[in-house]
Amino acid sequence: MNASTAFFTDRYELTMVDAALTAGTAHRRCVFEVFSRRLSGARRYGVLAGTGRLLDLIDRFRFEEAELSWLRDNEVVSTRTIDWLADYRFSGNIFGYPEGEVFFPGSPVLTIEGTFAESVLLETLALSVLNYDSAVATAASRMVTAAGTRPIAEMGSRRTGEYNAVAAARAAYIAGFAATSNLEAGRSWGIPTMGTAAHAFTLLHDSEEQAFQAQINTLGPGTTLLVDTYDIPAAVALAVKIAGPELGAVRIDSGDLPVVVAEVRAQLDSLGAHNTRITVTNDLDEYSVATLGASPVDSYGVGTSVVVGSGSPTTGMVYKIVAHEDNNGEWVSVAKKSQDKASVGGRKRAYRELSERGVAQAENIYVADETDEHSESDSHKGERALMVPLITDGVADSRYRGAEGVQLARQRHAASVAELPLQAMRLTRGDPVIPTQYR
Amino acid sequence: MNASTAFFTDRYELTMVDAALTAGTAHRRCVFEVFSRRLSGARRYGVLAGTGRLLDLIDRFRFEEAELSWLRDNEVVSTRTIDWLADYRFSGNIFGYPEGEVFFPGSPVLTIEGTFAESVLLETLALSVLNYDSAVATAASRMVTAAGTRPIAEMGSRRTGEYNAVAAARAAYIAGFAATSNLEAGRSWGIPTMGTAAHAFTLLHDSEEQAFQAQINTLGPGTTLLVDTYDIPAAVALAVKIAGPELGAVRIDSGDLPVVVAEVRAQLDSLGAHNTRITVTNDLDEYSVATLGASPVDSYGVGTSVVVGSGSPTTGMVYKIVAHEDNNGEWVSVAKKSQDKASVGGRKRAYRELSERGVAQAENIYVADETDEHSESDSHKGERALMVPLITDGVADSRYRGAEGVQLARQRHAASVAELPLQAMRLTRGDPVIPTQYR
Repeated sequence: MNASTAFFTDRYELTMVDAALTAGTAHRRCVFEVFSRRLSGARRYGVLAGTGRLLDLIDRFRFEEAELSWLRDNEVVSTRTIDWLADYRFSGNIFGYPEGEVFFPGSPVLTIEGTFAESVLLETLALSVLNYDSAVATAASRMVTAAGTRPIAEMGSRRTGEYNAVAAARAAYIAGFAATSNLEAGRSWGIPTMGTAAHAFTLLHDSEEQAFQAQINTLGPGTTLLVDTYDIPAAVALAVKIAGPELGAVRIDSGDLPVVVAEVRAQLDSLGAHNTRITVTNDLDEYSVATLGASPVDSYGVGTSVVVGSGSPTTGMVYKIVAHEDNNGEWVSVAKKSQDKASVGGRKRAYRELSERGVAQAENIYVADETDEHSESDSHKGERALMVPLITDGVADSRYRGAEGVQLARQRHAASVAELPLQAMRLTRGDPVIPTQYR
Repeated sequence: MNASTAFFTDRYELTMVDAALTAGTAHRRCVFEVFSRRLSGARRYGVLAGTGRLLDLIDRFRFEEAELSWLRDNEVVSTRTIDWLADYRFSGNIFGYPEGEVFFPGSPVLTIEGTFAESVLLETLALSVLNYDSAVATAASRMVTAAGTRPIAEMGSRRTGEYNAVAAARAAYIAGFAATSNLEAGRSWGIPTMGTAAHAFTLLHDSEEQAFQAQINTLGPGTTLLVDTYDIPAAVALAVKIAGPELGAVRIDSGDLPVVVAEVRAQLDSLGAHNTRITVTNDLDEYSVATLGASPVDSYGVGTSVVVGSGSPTTGMVYKIVAHEDNNGEWVSVAKKSQDKASVGGRKRAYRELSERGVAQAENIYVADETDEHSESDSHKGERALMVPLITDGVADSRYRGAEGVQLARQRHAASVAELPLQAMRLTRGDPVIPTQYR
């Protein structure tokens, strides 16, 4: 899809551009920053996701004739502004944490440098993408921890909007999920897809035996049979009778899982189906996955809870102006003073402080001198630089895009989580596992 | 956008079709049903939304060469099934509650009649759309009740994925919101859009005065000025000084709202700006909107809470087979027996029982005789029929689509809520306001 993404935008972004063009302030150079004031759900760390999607969407952020005529017909902005929008494309720079990186309160996960007008227009889209995708990745990362070495598949497409479903599959995979049920996520982002059959398939047939036989005839004995439509022990016996001990797996989607799983495992073993795996999919979240740690489960399928962020369906990321040039071309740091919503002005650079053993100690944020340009080359002893160039003079770094970008993000995430103190793995509510320090 | 929607689908829908084609059961006539087992968040009623979107998406549910070759390359299904998918389009019937209607546990909000193969394929897409849109509409309806006669605008685009943002604006409008910040929702669905400026606009300028003047110069004195960037009383005084008493509105986005709103109203009145409205937008939900009922607020802007369903980010709708033809062409009711997930088999018709004064008393669900065809013409004394034909022989009723469909849904919602007992308006958790009765 190459359709314009420019209307995934709040109307006020355009009216601000309109007013700033009139005032002669629209072309002041600005620095905007995306950050969260706190971690949603009192989690120990957040996970940034959505960056690769955002780079694609910014590429398509153009006002074509369809958009321009709608704005004209609805008198949203002046004719002069419509002319300016016709030529719009983002030509500035965007730096950010690489996708998959963990973040903490105040972490400048995205820094946008450009004119006021070109930068403010991206606010709504950038936040839509990063807030949703990061909410999913943050929840998913906890589930992956809870599952230990067992694979988890994402299968929540039906519980969120049809496009969000694709983004959720992608974010969960970045956070360490093994696969998804969603075909579009497979096609667009190269994520392994999985799934065999639902209860409807069993119910369609005249008997469970007919259904199992039909599935095995087509998908082979290595398939996963759903065994809880009627009676689990009867279905397990039937499944092994038909498929033989080479039956790939059985799926259990209901009941008191620790008890049922133990019984099914014993039954499978007694039938000689020692290699037949057990996968469970009954409204799981990180807590129920953790509870099943001692049960002979081989893999998990997680639906609802991951696509809705397991209690925190959005992250609280905001997109704030932190510096701009004044009339004389001098840089000025700015910050609003609204009660409870104060922000820290000034361009920032972020580093993760590591112990000698490589364990994360703190998120160090250096508020740059106002004249300071972003520099990657700064070396900080005992610190890992967190920000990379994502878009330079309007051109995105292709490494962070597409299926390749997803793989890179998945690696980044695994490495960053491995670096965190062990307390990061706690599922209880609490403080961020490392402090944020302004330097 | 006319791109294929066929991949917004779980892989198992296709593998089931594959196995059923092999088994010769794929073309059995079936009845599937969408319903919720309970109301998410222990609300008193649910609100169905998404139907009009779903009709569009089903129209585009085709497997084009791009989809077919991906399925072939990834060996998802057999060649025979790929050939069948190439010709796929839904040719059956869909009945349902009209969009905007309220629902209760077990309400058959959508009934799909067709062959197994053609009907099962739509499961994921139908649930993605209805579960998200209905979660938003259900939360939004409570907010509208809490706001009484004051208008609410939806401005949560930044807190959910970019496409969900459009769906959320649409669902909130159906539930009675007055407007949205989202431009795409304005264009695609005819929803009024609103918004003027953010804190960044004030911070861009050398002074608040310069910012306010710039905004008024472009948007006129009837605009809404954001007054909490620095100091509220100073900003209110400045706003009236520049715009005069014809200033449209001031927006407050932070602080202890009941106190601040009262002070701002007194200040505006003391400055002669009696007609200047006050709009508030500080992380509101239905509870904080209700709390502000006695404050001199003129309108609300609601963001995060509405797009994430205010604590219930999805509804628990499921898509279940309830009847099918057997080998002999006889209809058989079917239902799974999984623990805690049992379903009621058989084709259903639903009516709302009304008292003599027109107040809803019960959701009456008639489980039809297996040979019964759906009939609209049934008249039931003291009951209102709830199901309408949405798609007949594959062709959607255009009245339910586009901007016209949104208006119809908004009217349906208002009428259906007006019919509910007063207890439906309670914001506390509790039982559904009317019982569901199977007849």
